[in-house]
Amino acid sequence: MRMYDIIQRKRDGKELTTEEINFFIDGYTKGEIPDYQASALLMAIYLQKMNKRETVDLTNAMVNSGEVVDLSSIEGIKVDKHSTGGVGDKVTLALGPMVAACGLPFAKMSGRGLGHTGGTLDKLESIKGLRTELTKNEFVSIVNKVKLSICSQTANIAPADKKLYALRDVTATVDNISLIASSVMSKKIASGSNAIVLDVKVGSGAFMKDLDDAFLLAKEMVDIGNSVGRNTVAVISNMDEPLGFAVGNALEVKEAIDTLKGSGPQDFVELCLTLGSMLLFLGKKAETVESGREMLIEVIENGKAYDKLLEFVQAQDGDIEYVKNTELLPKAANVVEVKSDCEGYIKSINAEEIGKCALALGAGRETKESKIDLSAGIILNKKVDDKVNKGDVLAYLHFNDYNKAKDVDIRLKNAIKIGEKNEESKKLIYGIVDVNGIRRF
Amino acid sequence: MRMYDIIQRKRDGKELTTEEINFFIDGYTKGEIPDYQASALLMAIYLQKMNKRETVDLTNAMVNSGEVVDLSSIEGIKVDKHSTGGVGDKVTLALGPMVAACGLPFAKMSGRGLGHTGGTLDKLESIKGLRTELTKNEFVSIVNKVKLSICSQTANIAPADKKLYALRDVTATVDNISLIASSVMSKKIASGSNAIVLDVKVGSGAFMKDLDDAFLLAKEMVDIGNSVGRNTVAVISNMDEPLGFAVGNALEVKEAIDTLKGSGPQDFVELCLTLGSMLLFLGKKAETVESGREMLIEVIENGKAYDKLLEFVQAQDGDIEYVKNTELLPKAANVVEVKSDCEGYIKSINAEEIGKCALALGAGRETKESKIDLSAGIILNKKVDDKVNKGDVLAYLHFNDYNKAKDVDIRLKNAIKIGEKNEESKKLIYGIVDVNGIRRF
Repeated sequence: MRMYDIIQRKRDGKELTTEEINFFIDGYTKGEIPDYQASALLMAIYLQKMNKRETVDLTNAMVNSGEVVDLSSIEGIKVDKHSTGGVGDKVTLALGPMVAACGLPFAKMSGRGLGHTGGTLDKLESIKGLRTELTKNEFVSIVNKVKLSICSQTANIAPADKKLYALRDVTATVDNISLIASSVMSKKIASGSNAIVLDVKVGSGAFMKDLDDAFLLAKEMVDIGNSVGRNTVAVISNMDEPLGFAVGNALEVKEAIDTLKGSGPQDFVELCLTLGSMLLFLGKKAETVESGREMLIEVIENGKAYDKLLEFVQAQDGDIEYVKNTELLPKAANVVEVKSDCEGYIKSINAEEIGKCALALGAGRETKESKIDLSAGIILNKKVDDKVNKGDVLAYLHFNDYNKAKDVDIRLKNAIKIGEKNEESKKLIYGIVDVNGIRRF
Repeated sequence: MRMYDIIQRKRDGKELTTEEINFFIDGYTKGEIPDYQASALLMAIYLQKMNKRETVDLTNAMVNSGEVVDLSSIEGIKVDKHSTGGVGDKVTLALGPMVAACGLPFAKMSGRGLGHTGGTLDKLESIKGLRTELTKNEFVSIVNKVKLSICSQTANIAPADKKLYALRDVTATVDNISLIASSVMSKKIASGSNAIVLDVKVGSGAFMKDLDDAFLLAKEMVDIGNSVGRNTVAVISNMDEPLGFAVGNALEVKEAIDTLKGSGPQDFVELCLTLGSMLLFLGKKAETVESGREMLIEVIENGKAYDKLLEFVQAQDGDIEYVKNTELLPKAANVVEVKSDCEGYIKSINAEEIGKCALALGAGRETKESKIDLSAGIILNKKVDDKVNKGDVLAYLHFNDYNKAKDVDIRLKNAIKIGEKNEESKKLIYGIVDVNGIRRF
């Protein structure tokens, strides 16, 4: 078999065989196939597309390029949740304790963020002492005891995907449904859980800007998951405005804690309930999705979800005083109000631009080497469809360095459109994709 | 400007600007743009195509990536001829003396062959002592004195093309009209002649297998040449069977000499007259193409073309006795007849397969490092449409090494189809493309 022939066949719109896909992934992972041949094939795949069978094969080949985590020493059905990424997405921080409080083991390997804010691990480090670098044994024993652990991915998960993603990133071959779906799913499948709930975000702050594309991507990922025996469901959710009010690491941790205490932002709570009820249903802790939702509401109301957070923080050596008293979390030296110049209704909030403002304030990483300012970020004071009067506070900027805050107020104001009331009110969940197909709401 | 954006734009089917194309070629030549980005762009160009303007810009950028030869010290209009390559193509060897004998300066930089037989330089080295490594001064002074010189390309001609071609060769991005046309024309334009006659071959032994594709390629090259002020004409010629009878270096030299003496194979003579009359017309040595043809017939009949060959060989330090007595040319130890098993008419001769048979006998290079056996090759005894009786000789194999000749007789017989007389007789010239467009014959 020759890589040249594989490139030529895909270039000509042919379907690649399982053997050809395995040859490519295996050879590329080992460094036997050079980048310039891989990038030519990626561009051919981008333009000529892959069918479902090829995409599943590509996913499996990437799973098999590295370690497949064995979670069998954790009791019960293991569920995982993955978000395609958005602004203000602190779902894992609240969702983990919620489902764990319902008895479902939530064993999550997470990453660090590159871009507007940190990843889940960065956010968790706002809590003093909390360790996210755990051994496999620590991780398993915490999940078995607490039902919840979040740690950094130490295993050699899907190295082919890591290498290919870096190449796609510099050759304009990222946004192809088959390539995105296989990249996400290879990591999820190799992470060893039995069931997967995907949060596919769509809108100004998401990777997917178009609703139909988001459904297509969701369908592709759900099909891949189910085809390899992982019960997979996708929720398509709105990322036209940031999720909740808080954007920035410690600020988001506080918002997640507030949510577990029963006073979370309406959209954020709703998304956690939607995703969580799916997890409970797939994990066989709830008979129906509806009953799962009731269980989650109950563990928030009776404080069990909040207690679960404390238990988790303690198990990973975090200082629970930081949870009990969020004033202890990293705090910015300056908090500046951004006020409205006009009156009307919030028509839209460009989530991507809000994310970039938070990044400018220090909340994210410009490059892999950047250090995050955990205290920096933005607290929105208005959401889409809210009434605004002239002089009303639109948002609060949290920052330590005035140089970084320069012009951010103007950029933020430009990102928030105010005008007539929108004719249709916003929608949080656009639909669900599962083994039965697409359901649009 | 970023290479990423250029890839993305072509990926999305956009037209690249002159600046973008220059940025790519300049950066790639300097090694600032890596192979993996160049190959992604090449695949995007392959699948999304380039328009005429982009193709001309790409050609110019590749011309400017290296040296542009200045032939102004040669008197008169300088013409060049280029063949897209075929089996038994010894045109330059006869055509050069023919047009030079008519007073047209023929200053040709040539290459060595990779594949079924050697290139023009290899063939010329069958003549003892003949030097093809000339200094620029020697080259110019020989052309000014003799009107004919053929030397190896020493200048740094279109290095971008050299680098890109090597990359295309391993990424399945060779056979795209824009990429082929710009590759050929960048080298021709940088070689400094004023007018160019292209011999675009089509058929079993050519790069182009399809007649319409050959016309498209010819049109693209002619348009490029004319758009940069080089008077360019293309002849589309048949390469369904080898040109003439001889395939192999010394064997082809002998056939070219015979042709200059007035006893050349009909198809080969006809092609030389067609190409030569164009050259004389473009070089303003003939009022019309028709009168150019008469001039060429005359210099063969009166011996001036043959004398010109002797003059040229002497000027480049070759032993003219090798021309006068072709028995002195390298000769193979063994000559084996291949006879027909049946009777009928020659329906077709697979030129590519004949070329591969000659290569197997030692006439060509398998790799860049291979040494050519100048004496090895094939002399066909029959051409398409000829009548054949059982036991008639189809061809003679010339070789020194019996190991290399193993099975070649069987392969050769398989390459020659014998059957009913073809309904239409073969055509040598399919048409001409010039500044006025395509004329099919």
